[in-house]
Amino acid sequence: MTTALLTDHYELTMLQAALASGAADRRSFFELFPRRLPAGRRYGVVAGVGRALDAIEDFRFGEAELQMLSEERIVDDRTLAWLADYRFHGNIWGYAEGEVYFPYSPLMVVESTFAEAVVLETVLLSIYNHDSAIASAASRMTWAAGDRPCIEMGSRRTHEWAAVASARAAYVAGFTASSNLMARLRYDVPTTGTSAHSFTLLHDSEADAFRAQVDSLGRSTTLLVDTYDIEEAVRLGVEVAGAELGAVRIDSGDLGVLAHRVRAQLDDLGAHDTRIIVTSDLDEFAIAGLSSAPVDGYGVGTELVVGSGHPTCGFVYKLVAREDDHGRLVGVAKKSTDKISIGGRKYALRRLSPRGVAEAEVVGIGQPAVNDGDDRVLLTPLVKDGEVVGREPLKAARQRHLRSRGELPLVARQLSKGDPVIETVHER
Amino acid sequence: MTTALLTDHYELTMLQAALASGAADRRSFFELFPRRLPAGRRYGVVAGVGRALDAIEDFRFGEAELQMLSEERIVDDRTLAWLADYRFHGNIWGYAEGEVYFPYSPLMVVESTFAEAVVLETVLLSIYNHDSAIASAASRMTWAAGDRPCIEMGSRRTHEWAAVASARAAYVAGFTASSNLMARLRYDVPTTGTSAHSFTLLHDSEADAFRAQVDSLGRSTTLLVDTYDIEEAVRLGVEVAGAELGAVRIDSGDLGVLAHRVRAQLDDLGAHDTRIIVTSDLDEFAIAGLSSAPVDGYGVGTELVVGSGHPTCGFVYKLVAREDDHGRLVGVAKKSTDKISIGGRKYALRRLSPRGVAEAEVVGIGQPAVNDGDDRVLLTPLVKDGEVVGREPLKAARQRHLRSRGELPLVARQLSKGDPVIETVHER
Repeated sequence: MTTALLTDHYELTMLQAALASGAADRRSFFELFPRRLPAGRRYGVVAGVGRALDAIEDFRFGEAELQMLSEERIVDDRTLAWLADYRFHGNIWGYAEGEVYFPYSPLMVVESTFAEAVVLETVLLSIYNHDSAIASAASRMTWAAGDRPCIEMGSRRTHEWAAVASARAAYVAGFTASSNLMARLRYDVPTTGTSAHSFTLLHDSEADAFRAQVDSLGRSTTLLVDTYDIEEAVRLGVEVAGAELGAVRIDSGDLGVLAHRVRAQLDDLGAHDTRIIVTSDLDEFAIAGLSSAPVDGYGVGTELVVGSGHPTCGFVYKLVAREDDHGRLVGVAKKSTDKISIGGRKYALRRLSPRGVAEAEVVGIGQPAVNDGDDRVLLTPLVKDGEVVGREPLKAARQRHLRSRGELPLVARQLSKGDPVIETVHER
Repeated sequence: MTTALLTDHYELTMLQAALASGAADRRSFFELFPRRLPAGRRYGVVAGVGRALDAIEDFRFGEAELQMLSEERIVDDRTLAWLADYRFHGNIWGYAEGEVYFPYSPLMVVESTFAEAVVLETVLLSIYNHDSAIASAASRMTWAAGDRPCIEMGSRRTHEWAAVASARAAYVAGFTASSNLMARLRYDVPTTGTSAHSFTLLHDSEADAFRAQVDSLGRSTTLLVDTYDIEEAVRLGVEVAGAELGAVRIDSGDLGVLAHRVRAQLDDLGAHDTRIIVTSDLDEFAIAGLSSAPVDGYGVGTELVVGSGHPTCGFVYKLVAREDDHGRLVGVAKKSTDKISIGGRKYALRRLSPRGVAEAEVVGIGQPAVNDGDDRVLLTPLVKDGEVVGREPLKAARQRHLRSRGELPLVARQLSKGDPVIETVHER
């Protein structure tokens, strides 16, 4: 499916006017970057890179798209002809997926003609703004959860395709699984799930329901124990499945208190290996609050898919430099914006202490003056002469995230509001 | 494209266990409803109905989906065979699109076998929770804007397909247009757009850029005037396009002060009909705050697509009644939830005063005891024996929203936090 119309109307009218003025072919640099982190957040997480590369490859105007643009007179014939042949021929560098970021991190640098780059603005921003918001929230949750697995189950609380992207982004940021089957088909994200309250209510008794579930899904299944009375359900679950019962899930009430009670009961019943999964309106704070409770896994729904208070990142995509009539590259910027964003192709380094702890985000134009070897280069080639070169397995992004987050000063793990944990240094 | 895997894993494992236990075929009623409005909101707006009907028709397990479910051993062969033949044969009633809603409004009532209804849970909730969150925010914005048009331009700040649904939902709730071209192709939502700062920066001077835009897009275009100096840009715009200049757009700064200044300047230049469009981080409060400024249109981005603080609705989809072995319908409910949600097929009425002002949301089971003629019936047939019967043009939803919102007590228009404007009355 083409991504070409996941685009703001003005990208195409600008294109038309630029084709007419002759400026459309000026070599240009666009940059995708955040001016700030969401208030109080100490770091952000880049996600959506792989999806963005797919979207660039799928950005083609087919018959249906061109017909609509023509019939509705959105652009003129010259522009239609140009769009019919569209493909991106330029170069893109960017932060690799899973990397952490800070204010003014140049997450993506796009070099091509103005025309080829400007039309990608909307879809690139949509993907990065959404997926990174989810990954940034997810990372705080998995860090708070420590060694305990986090399972993404928020599909029902967000747009049906945003749900798929959310499952993917959460996986990048350390979630172990999702409930979303399309994320499994499309991105190989592991999925899990057993039953809901409706399954218990469908049967004449909880015993009937538990027997039906264990018979069909096996003793290692997870029984939902809070439809009626938790203590009775736990007793019944072990009666039905034996001590091999995989897990019980608690989806309501004071999860900390209940987890302690259920653990004691399970142990009394000899079900020492039966795990306890909790799943009621969790966010990173609730997860942290349950760290001393005997919980074996967290299912996170709504707060993951809404970015735990920050459902979008506020990334922008700005023209930062373009050729003039003499072929010289000229830095450009809107008057009222921070002049920091001028310039051509950026570099970006994570400055590390000799012990490997992140100390600064170093951003500049051209080549870095000094790289003493401890600095880590952040921009990698994603597209070269129109060909995608930055594709990688999702697991690589997942591993990168752990490494990148692991470099941050420990204060990054604090959930309280604060400034970015490292400063962004603009080199000239 | 099939919607079948936009589904939580547990829907299918439950299905497997219910097919095995024999309970899968029990006639069941599921209900999709909110337990509350988002904190402080006075009413909500139903959107996504048309999309949900599409999703039900497209809910088919094709080869790719079945192969994945089989290879990854997510369900057994019997379940795979059942899914291969899946189509929904039941009945669905619901609030029509654009209707306002309140706590416990039975937005959708699904009657079918347990098996056929349970698998639709995730995708129906995704669509309703997302689209209604956007429409609910949009309605506050258009009400605050009064007769001035609101234009949706938030695509870049949300998932690329959520953007399309957002444009659609905003249109239902009174927005006049969107920037999103896919929303135009797919849903006939009007779109608009002219140019961004990058277009001005691409050219050697603002004069070059304005001339290029006016030459290509005509004098009725909207010029973006805040790239460098607003006063100079307004002067230049009228010089280039004449008094026929369609509009100027201001995207930064103190919009109220600037609108007054720009209006005075335009009038001085004889451009009395040139409109002023403002577009910087607007929400319903900013729109209301600009009501006395000479603004002719509002472009709303981020705050629209994130639901202005409430990006999801918290709708749930609950089994409320099902057959027993004797074919009798039994009301069911989780112990800890409000017993209000028990029962079979609901009715819902908007109780209206003789002057047509909404007084209560009346919800009950079966047939209403009394309907004095002033009450408005809220549940309409959406699907009958598996056939979609509730499809309608999007404009019908848009008109319905205006009528439905117009019935509310005037306090509903207040943006300050408060209780739902009418009470939900549960009839027994």
